[in-house]
Amino acid sequence: MPEAIPPTERTRVVREAHRGAYDRETIYKILDEAYVCHAGFAIDGQPFVIPTLFARVGDAIYFHGSAASRMLRNVGEGISVCVTVTLTDGFVLARSVFNHSMNYRSVVALGKATIVDAPEEKLEALSQPNEKELKATSILRLPLTEVSAKIRSGPVEDDAPDYALPVWAGVIPLALTPGAPIRDERCDPAIRTPAYAAQYRR
Amino acid sequence: MPEAIPPTERTRVVREAHRGAYDRETIYKILDEAYVCHAGFAIDGQPFVIPTLFARVGDAIYFHGSAASRMLRNVGEGISVCVTVTLTDGFVLARSVFNHSMNYRSVVALGKATIVDAPEEKLEALSQPNEKELKATSILRLPLTEVSAKIRSGPVEDDAPDYALPVWAGVIPLALTPGAPIRDERCDPAIRTPAYAAQYRR
Repeated sequence: MPEAIPPTERTRVVREAHRGAYDRETIYKILDEAYVCHAGFAIDGQPFVIPTLFARVGDAIYFHGSAASRMLRNVGEGISVCVTVTLTDGFVLARSVFNHSMNYRSVVALGKATIVDAPEEKLEALSQPNEKELKATSILRLPLTEVSAKIRSGPVEDDAPDYALPVWAGVIPLALTPGAPIRDERCDPAIRTPAYAAQYRR
Repeated sequence: MPEAIPPTERTRVVREAHRGAYDRETIYKILDEAYVCHAGFAIDGQPFVIPTLFARVGDAIYFHGSAASRMLRNVGEGISVCVTVTLTDGFVLARSVFNHSMNYRSVVALGKATIVDAPEEKLEALSQPNEKELKATSILRLPLTEVSAKIRSGPVEDDAPDYALPVWAGVIPLALTPGAPIRDERCDPAIRTPAYAAQYRR
């Protein structure tokens, strides 16, 4: 039985409520397939939304704070953020323009993000940087306590009368696909292309 | 000579300033290649970031307000938003983890979004919905007056000493690629798959 995260008033999916999901398994699968999040923060009522790389480690998201340097000036005990992750799976082309949609999987996480200071925690989030690198990189941590997913999958949903319209309808799948790796010009040709680059898969 | 949009303190790219771009041609090309934006708004200092479909028409972005229904309650003369659009072009795998990066093109647009009421304007933004559909769909409009782009392209940039490391380095290109269209089960087989679905290209 997957662990459910009780939705709050802020994370409950209201519109198209049947698309909401609140169990960690579903939410973490989406997060682990993505690379880029959109981190939102507000200064004097003005929101800023910044794309940045992120990783989930356990029950938290770690993301680059350097991109969000405006935030760090105001940090203190943590600042309110919204981190949103979206995977686009297809165009849903309905008979009616109004029912055009996308298939997607998204996660919205709310809470207070704090700067990661502990070297071991930074190490884990970044893999294995050297000491200088550790100091130069600001990493923010957001615990996944107030979080929900929203998922649309499957076929077109037209209104009943529209099914008679003589229009093509269906789904065009979309996938973020890796191409052949481009070796850096200064990379010794004797070094073989590793499998993680040659057959990149998430 | 492409028209430049003077950056404000809020849209000037500070970190990696050479990646900033401020001309409408560059900015609009990024917007026109994307489908999904991340719209940010704040309520009592808490940011919310919602993925939604959007389109650029002239010097404005139109996006679905229904997804941002929380916003609409507080609207009035418009609410402060940040609309961010990100295209991911590749993983940049450096010799040092610290220099791992992504190739990407992003646009950040700030300003006040308003609800579109004029039927003609809605029509243009939505293509051609019927009357009922027009009424049911909230569309928000954000004029592109305070906007900038940030672009990272090209090869790995390692620190000088790291080039000697015996590690593979290079770029894995990424592209959002369409698959073969899946015809809706209730779509008359006599209706041919249109070119825009069979050979989808943005």
